[in-house]
Amino acid sequence: MGNYVERTWDSIEVGESASFTKTVTETDLVMMAGISGDFNPMHVDEDYASKTQFGGRIAHGVLSCTFISAVLGTKLPGPGCIYGGQEVSFRAPICIGDTVSAVATVEEKFTKKDGKLKFLKIKTEVIIDKAVRIPDNTGKVATTGYATILMLK
Amino acid sequence: MGNYVERTWDSIEVGESASFTKTVTETDLVMMAGISGDFNPMHVDEDYASKTQFGGRIAHGVLSCTFISAVLGTKLPGPGCIYGGQEVSFRAPICIGDTVSAVATVEEKFTKKDGKLKFLKIKTEVIIDKAVRIPDNTGKVATTGYATILMLK
Amino acid sequence: MGNYVERTWDSIEVGESASFTKTVTETDLVMMAGISGDFNPMHVDEDYASKTQFGGRIAHGVLSCTFISAVLGTKLPGPGCIYGGQEVSFRAPICIGDTVSAVATVEEKFTKKDGKLKFLKIKTEVIIDKAVRIPDNTGKVATTGYATILMLK
Amino acid sequence: MGNYVERTWDSIEVGESASFTKTVTETDLVMMAGISGDFNPMHVDEDYASKTQFGGRIAHGVLSCTFISAVLGTKLPGPGCIYGGQEVSFRAPICIGDTVSAVATVEEKFTKKDGKLKFLKIKTEVIIDKAVRIPDNTGKVATTGYATILMLK
Repeated sequence: MGNYVERTWDSIEVGESASFTKTVTETDLVMMAGISGDFNPMHVDEDYASKTQFGGRIAHGVLSCTFISAVLGTKLPGPGCIYGGQEVSFRAPICIGDTVSAVATVEEKFTKKDGKLKFLKIKTEVIIDKAVRIPDNTGKVATTGYATILMLK
Repeated sequence: MGNYVERTWDSIEVGESASFTKTVTETDLVMMAGISGDFNPMHVDEDYASKTQFGGRIAHGVLSCTFISAVLGTKLPGPGCIYGGQEVSFRAPICIGDTVSAVATVEEKFTKKDGKLKFLKIKTEVIIDKAVRIPDNTGKVATTGYATILMLK
Repeated sequence: MGNYVERTWDSIEVGESASFTKTVTETDLVMMAGISGDFNPMHVDEDYASKTQFGGRIAHGVLSCTFISAVLGTKLPGPGCIYGGQEVSFRAPICIGDTVSAVATVEEKFTKKDGKLKFLKIKTEVIIDKAVRIPDNTGKVATTGYATILMLK
Repeated sequence: MGNYVERTWDSIEVGESASFTKTVTETDLVMMAGISGDFNPMHVDEDYASKTQFGGRIAHGVLSCTFISAVLGTKLPGPGCIYGGQEVSFRAPICIGDTVSAVATVEEKFTKKDGKLKFLKIKTEVIIDKAVRIPDNTGKVATTGYATILMLK
């Protein structure tokens, strides 16, 4: 059977951080549209998108959320917990060719039901490490918000 | 050029609703893992997942968010607006074979900066129309929350 | 910029091990055929495959190699080294629905050119954790061999 | 039923050769990462990869193995035999945009168990026909090694 490290609530410290980095490609936009059904022209119609204020196709906002899911689901806290909720604000567009990092940082540990349910509040940001089509976006926060995680151990 | 209906803030009424429905397949889980990098074993390791309280692989929570993105991005309000933010709670697991509907319902219209910026607050739910592996989940709300949309017209 | 842990040759010990686990799906076979061009009927023609000694479609042998690549490229040793070579024997077929683990275990550390080039010899096995269509294959080694890795640090 | 030519061991001559050619695209890298779980930054993080000695993302070594699988599985010897094993050395990086050919050449025919098991030893090379990002790599051997094939007829 798969050999997974399952973190405990006790072992996790406020301030602990992890990240996942990937270059966003045209393929990601095409496949995201195909899975989701979100064929909004900003993501799949270059002719339309090039005439908007963004100057070309931009990634689905929710694509950045999938990278948050990756860092939470594989690194911090990783396997063995339940993703309770997420809030995000979309601040800057991610373009094809941009390299982005989803960064998760534990902000708070709390419990409910007399300590029986153990939670983490995790700050989740997607940062544009390197923006290609709109170079000024390098370093900007594309997506910011918080995740709520229920720990099972 | 593509022929898109771009809704105006004025034309949209509180209570207006739209939906997007899809059966979630194993392919969706495989591709979601592949795009996002989220290879959490709950989504890709049936041997592991079958031994958890969920009894088998479940969809990434964020997959349900992509269906919300679809209904917002293609139907209500559709092209020509900006997805400002989203908050979601994950309430019930979506399994392979389940048919789900993302439902968007306009809850509130508001403005900022003396009426210059026009927003919609949209209730967003993903409902399990038909649950296959866990039949009791039929009719349950898998994901619930709110989207904030900035209208450009 | 992405935050990666790059292991050094000195830090790695003989006997160290890591694994990557995934359920093999029909989607993987379809996509592997699509990327590679390997449309051998054993992988894409169920009618043909069902009449062979394997009783149905089996995964491309090279799919198991991609899981070896995953454990080497992301876990042991992970980023910052060069994949010099691989030898594999294909011992048992992997079927759709099987859950498999690629396991990498450091077997030997060696150098070339008066110690200037530092290498790892890593035993690489893909084990069938749970076989679905041919239950007797549970626990069998599907693929076995060795990887040679050039460490850059 | 599918109409396949299944070669016999007797019909195959030492020196016989076949090839499969394809241009490697960014999509191939994205999908290879997605199937395999190998998100090593050399393959998916352009910002990181551009700062290495390779100057940008390179294809997974195992992607070249999938092209070997294609030529073996569809052309020489094609359907009706068993892929027993493969050894490869990775010699030169394949970049996005490069056109490569996997070439299989029968090097030796041999038998085991008093002639009951009939094998081919096939030299397998992946050659860079046209290198785009690193033009000097045109004509280089990216991957070289040998395949062992068990013939069923």
